[in-house]
Amino acid sequence: MARRLSILGSTGSIGQSSLSVVSHANAVASEPAFEIEALTAHTNVELLASQAIEFGARTAVIGEARFHGALKSRLAGTGIEARAGASAIEEVARVPVDRVVASIVGIAGLASTHAALEAGNDIALANKESMVCAGPLLKQVAAKTGARIVPTDSEHNAMFQVMERAEDVDRLILTASGGPFLRTPLEKLAKVTPEEACAHPRWSMGRKISVDSASFMNKALELIEASYLFDVPESRIDVLVHPQSIIHSLVSYVDGSFLAQLGSPDMQTPIAHALSWPHGRVPTAVERLDLAAVSRLEFEHVDDQRFPSIRLARAALNESDAAVIVLNASNEEAVDAFLSGRCKFTDINRVNEEAVSKLSHSFTHSGDCLSLEGISDIDREARKLARELVSASMAGAKD
Amino acid sequence: MARRLSILGSTGSIGQSSLSVVSHANAVASEPAFEIEALTAHTNVELLASQAIEFGARTAVIGEARFHGALKSRLAGTGIEARAGASAIEEVARVPVDRVVASIVGIAGLASTHAALEAGNDIALANKESMVCAGPLLKQVAAKTGARIVPTDSEHNAMFQVMERAEDVDRLILTASGGPFLRTPLEKLAKVTPEEACAHPRWSMGRKISVDSASFMNKALELIEASYLFDVPESRIDVLVHPQSIIHSLVSYVDGSFLAQLGSPDMQTPIAHALSWPHGRVPTAVERLDLAAVSRLEFEHVDDQRFPSIRLARAALNESDAAVIVLNASNEEAVDAFLSGRCKFTDINRVNEEAVSKLSHSFTHSGDCLSLEGISDIDREARKLARELVSASMAGAKD
Repeated sequence: MARRLSILGSTGSIGQSSLSVVSHANAVASEPAFEIEALTAHTNVELLASQAIEFGARTAVIGEARFHGALKSRLAGTGIEARAGASAIEEVARVPVDRVVASIVGIAGLASTHAALEAGNDIALANKESMVCAGPLLKQVAAKTGARIVPTDSEHNAMFQVMERAEDVDRLILTASGGPFLRTPLEKLAKVTPEEACAHPRWSMGRKISVDSASFMNKALELIEASYLFDVPESRIDVLVHPQSIIHSLVSYVDGSFLAQLGSPDMQTPIAHALSWPHGRVPTAVERLDLAAVSRLEFEHVDDQRFPSIRLARAALNESDAAVIVLNASNEEAVDAFLSGRCKFTDINRVNEEAVSKLSHSFTHSGDCLSLEGISDIDREARKLARELVSASMAGAKD
Repeated sequence: MARRLSILGSTGSIGQSSLSVVSHANAVASEPAFEIEALTAHTNVELLASQAIEFGARTAVIGEARFHGALKSRLAGTGIEARAGASAIEEVARVPVDRVVASIVGIAGLASTHAALEAGNDIALANKESMVCAGPLLKQVAAKTGARIVPTDSEHNAMFQVMERAEDVDRLILTASGGPFLRTPLEKLAKVTPEEACAHPRWSMGRKISVDSASFMNKALELIEASYLFDVPESRIDVLVHPQSIIHSLVSYVDGSFLAQLGSPDMQTPIAHALSWPHGRVPTAVERLDLAAVSRLEFEHVDDQRFPSIRLARAALNESDAAVIVLNASNEEAVDAFLSGRCKFTDINRVNEEAVSKLSHSFTHSGDCLSLEGISDIDREARKLARELVSASMAGAKD
């Protein structure tokens, strides 16, 4: 029987790849492998509508309410329900399906990820910030409802694919391509442009995540995500630079075995796994890895001086859940400032470090994990401070 | 509760490594992880006796009956039963235990491997020739008694560790170090000595398997073993040269995922897995893999002209089970001749090719798989022919 999916953020990069996976899997099978319940998007009415029609969705939701009319008229006569607004996204996240793809970018995806889990829906988690900011809460909710969280980030999905009993695990080894600035002379890092930062050598991604990859903050957030997802302290998670991005991550075991998932750098593979697990895998059109053609895989340690973000993430994890939220929020603001020319690339880490050191002590909580409101409060405060720090650095630069 | 083991071939390389695994696992655990039921050896009375005493075995068996007296006097007063002869080895293989380690080298291990499975004992299979010569029969017996075959060769254990449902598997990728002659000029291969052939760059192994590794016949036999073990035709098994021997093999899946097991080249890791699976893994003293220190993993295609044995194995597999037995038997004789200076290194493949082409049509059988007797008949005939071919080549070389 076809597995029923809802895709939150269907017009983004992960959403589109998810639909490619669905399309191929359905085309090669004798009967459809997947069916679509709901698709949601932030503002891209045109693409959302054509996706909904092509895949026969029951519901399409546009986040920005002002586009409701446009969506309704585009879907008129199709029988597809057109809805709008953040609360509609949360509502469709709760409709029972086999898997909800949580692929809204940034902390904006948290409420709907939370809603899906609260309703007992298994999720394919591509929204890293949800787990970074609300890992303990999401796991608590999932444990309560029995919903399962299947990691969809390529690194976490790789570890998930080879994960056995927790007590047998020795270490997690998170691989990092190294991004565009792996060999850039240190003194030139302050001068790099947003275009240079977004020119990722291996993966084609959105601009925010490309900058995070260039600053290693993406890997830092992945380290936090892995620690929450797999219940492994940061001291047992290594980051390993692997420029070819072929080994997507590894898990080592007490007997000396290292298990790894490898593949061509294409998000369709982890997505296909996250949509189908624990049932049989589905075929994809992804180019097959040819190791003889790749010829060589290389590995090196991370240069902590060049990329201080990993160290910062470890410190935040050891400090508190609040410190992690501050780090993520500050980074979103700093990257936004860098992309719009309001600060230098090297300011990103400086702003993050200052924000964490200034704010994380302000939030003390004990006992139960932070609530959605608590998380949102910390996030808001941290963004405000980060913007101030960016402005101050601008003013300093102009002096 | 401790898992009870019998080790057939305890004084060989795999047998000794198995006891190292047991020793370390027992030392680090609060209560013993493993107990020893029986140990067997071919001729090494002294080592067998001290192993039996150290590990508190219930029974020790020496294969060569003429050493029975020596073993009895060595074990006098210990309470350990001293037995001798091939039938005693088969009898202890049938004593119910949690795992029988089948690590007798060569086709000599077949009868006891068969006996263990027939008695319903799960086996850790390190005796490759058993599976190569009697794959269909051993699988049939195991299916009947419910005994499980856990591959212990590093490559097959690697694939076993990451093996999922058969219908999801795309290809098996068997890695090969390339052995000592990967870069030796072709014209020099006829002149290499047994000492050069036994100088394996990565693994420390016995002489027979070292020569097989140098000629790629080891990989050819592993390809056959993999095909039988995992029910995958040779057309879906690739051989990939990987000189560092860090990735021990891979399985690729229909969604584009490649799953792999990696580790330092030390047999204790696959043995530990094969002894403990499907229960929790046991800690080993194996040096942990450090990919940053290794720095680089390389891959290339096999050069079929230099190493024709893979092609020969594929042809034999496609021809018949009998052709595979002929190939294995002929190779054992040819390697023996090479090691004792009776033929050239390049004669090994030539003899194997001639033996398969001359003999494999003589054995036709239909319906059920070959019996132990049928296998033994083919093996004997093939050895006779191979010895004749070796003698003829000697005579030819002298002319």
